[in-house]
Amino acid sequence: MKIDRARLQASMDELGRIGATARGGLTRLALSDEDKQGRDLMVRWMREAGLRVTVDRMGNIFGERAGAAALPPVMMGSHVDSVPTGGTYDGQLGVLCALEVLRTLNDGNVRTRHPMTLAIFTNEEGARFQPAMIASGVLAGKIALEDAYNARDKDGVRLVDELERIGYLGSEPCVARPFRAYLELHIEQGPLLEEEGLAVGVVEGIVAISWSRLTIHGVQDHAGPTPMRIRHDALVAAAEVVTGVRQLARELGGDAVATVGNIVVAPNIVNAIPGRVTLSIDVRDPQTETLDRARARLDAIVREACAREGVRFELEHYWRMPYTPFAPEVVAAVERAARTVGAPHRRIRSGAGHDAQYMAAIGPAGMVFVPSHDGRSHCEEEFTPIEDVEQGANTLLLAALDLAGRA
Amino acid sequence: MKIDRARLQASMDELGRIGATARGGLTRLALSDEDKQGRDLMVRWMREAGLRVTVDRMGNIFGERAGAAALPPVMMGSHVDSVPTGGTYDGQLGVLCALEVLRTLNDGNVRTRHPMTLAIFTNEEGARFQPAMIASGVLAGKIALEDAYNARDKDGVRLVDELERIGYLGSEPCVARPFRAYLELHIEQGPLLEEEGLAVGVVEGIVAISWSRLTIHGVQDHAGPTPMRIRHDALVAAAEVVTGVRQLARELGGDAVATVGNIVVAPNIVNAIPGRVTLSIDVRDPQTETLDRARARLDAIVREACAREGVRFELEHYWRMPYTPFAPEVVAAVERAARTVGAPHRRIRSGAGHDAQYMAAIGPAGMVFVPSHDGRSHCEEEFTPIEDVEQGANTLLLAALDLAGRA
Repeated sequence: MKIDRARLQASMDELGRIGATARGGLTRLALSDEDKQGRDLMVRWMREAGLRVTVDRMGNIFGERAGAAALPPVMMGSHVDSVPTGGTYDGQLGVLCALEVLRTLNDGNVRTRHPMTLAIFTNEEGARFQPAMIASGVLAGKIALEDAYNARDKDGVRLVDELERIGYLGSEPCVARPFRAYLELHIEQGPLLEEEGLAVGVVEGIVAISWSRLTIHGVQDHAGPTPMRIRHDALVAAAEVVTGVRQLARELGGDAVATVGNIVVAPNIVNAIPGRVTLSIDVRDPQTETLDRARARLDAIVREACAREGVRFELEHYWRMPYTPFAPEVVAAVERAARTVGAPHRRIRSGAGHDAQYMAAIGPAGMVFVPSHDGRSHCEEEFTPIEDVEQGANTLLLAALDLAGRA
Repeated sequence: MKIDRARLQASMDELGRIGATARGGLTRLALSDEDKQGRDLMVRWMREAGLRVTVDRMGNIFGERAGAAALPPVMMGSHVDSVPTGGTYDGQLGVLCALEVLRTLNDGNVRTRHPMTLAIFTNEEGARFQPAMIASGVLAGKIALEDAYNARDKDGVRLVDELERIGYLGSEPCVARPFRAYLELHIEQGPLLEEEGLAVGVVEGIVAISWSRLTIHGVQDHAGPTPMRIRHDALVAAAEVVTGVRQLARELGGDAVATVGNIVVAPNIVNAIPGRVTLSIDVRDPQTETLDRARARLDAIVREACAREGVRFELEHYWRMPYTPFAPEVVAAVERAARTVGAPHRRIRSGAGHDAQYMAAIGPAGMVFVPSHDGRSHCEEEFTPIEDVEQGANTLLLAALDLAGRA
């Protein structure tokens, strides 16, 4: 049994047009009008595939294909929101491959023991509302529904109000329920599979992640008549922190990465000395303990940079996920499937967070990776050859069938 | 003859309420609704003072008090726009002191030989539309009217459309006309007068200013699965430039200042490696030649920072003003006036650009400074004691009367 590559490609093209950018990318921020259109299209396709569609209080969408027995479902899912000027593979590919798996089972009139459920999670990216993966976090009981509802975007708009506005404030409780397994197909977002000429990554786990927020309070003043000797420039201190974070990654070594991705300066005009800067610090490593060392170093980097410039600061380490190992039986099922498909594959760790991370906290979870060209993602240039997508989708199909069992 | 301090204070309070911030500052961006309200109030007061009000094609407002002879006017002016979360002294104080001078002449039934004209210039700050002092620049023939009209704010709105929207697209040609002298009272925006316990600065000239814009093109990618070894982070390169610009000021020494005030990052989210950064570089020095040395160093700083990170860049040196000496006879008149008033004073240079800079290109110009508490400006904490304001306004009165001549 094999998925229909042409049908999958057609669905990728059609969904990819919603929020498409001029340069082949995607801007489909969570709970935006584009997100609503993407969701609407998915729901239509899910209904056309005979799935029973429900929406929960966080806007997560589930489409169930009945099984032969009243057993917990094998879930497959991902998300349809994107980062600004992101690509057409991150998230979208996972839900479309899962849909294609279910369409393929329909075509073959295959009946499974366990039901199979397609899941689309709200606001995975964290680009609009923070934290990322907020809705699978609520489902896993790791984030309070109230906190998630009150998350605000940069314009102060609340998540719950946007859920309601686009018509996806569902009535189902957003709580953990038993599942046989959760499987998520996703692009690798790194260069390893492509570098090694492989089509499929059998994901063993997700690296530990730490997010921090630094606010620096300098003294806003005129850039002209203010002598250098009396300046307290928040951006000068921030620049040293950016350089320090790069240096930190070098010191940690191994697979550690550290990034300043977001920086907001006030008043942010040519002729004023910056009075306030807020910036984000993202640190990741396969070892959870490495993050402890990183935080201690980060505290010192920030303290020293701010002391040199004579500015005050607040540093909050506001979000953290330890290393997430996936369930050995699910990883083994994915590996068997890749072998059966004949897809060149390797075991790999995910450097990015995924909804699978929260799902792993409440049940057996695993992931299937496909290559990212040049290792690039979260950009318009995201690309995976359709041949690799096909092998990944077939791996997902066989792994899901293996875990659900034929009736 | 002396100005009426209580009346001046009342006018400062009333105008200061338009665009007032919660913390005692001012946000009255050029051609905003607040700017319109501020202009409307000024026009009302000017008419009440018997001035003949005209508006030119750049929205500059002129209010003429007739003289005894058909001679070029003594002009006094400044601006009513502010930076975001700026203060209530920058610009506003200059137009209100000029108005107070004319009210005082009215009170005393003083007739002058030369007419006296109050001038309010459009978009002095350059916070909304660039370059700064755009309207005096057009008046002085240094900026084409067409270019000024097409200046766009960060939302893409054209200056000319905003002029029309707020009702200040006047019919008078915006061209140079003869004037006896141009006088501008302004806060120092630096710490020197306060440090030396002086009330008045007799401004000899304005430092040379250079504005540059740097755009860095990195490779936008995911902050998680992208190994450090393949990153090209636009913000890391930008941070080195910020540090380099601070170092540049140190190298230049003397009274040189260098500032990165504006930085815009894309996509600017926690979990994406910044793909593009645009930042501003402002360099100033009393010696015009110092700016040449600064540019050469800046080119090297940018080139090296971008080479280290493997990113492309464009560096534009898009605006430059040489050192502007003020007219010796005007400077002497201000100095005589300060002495007569009994105001403790010194000669000083302006570190900030002012409309007086462009006016100096087409006629005899000069400035009167009053102290800035802690040297601060372009911030909500701007403050000048009313005693110093009074001495500055009286200096302006006597200097203007001296240059206009009693009839």
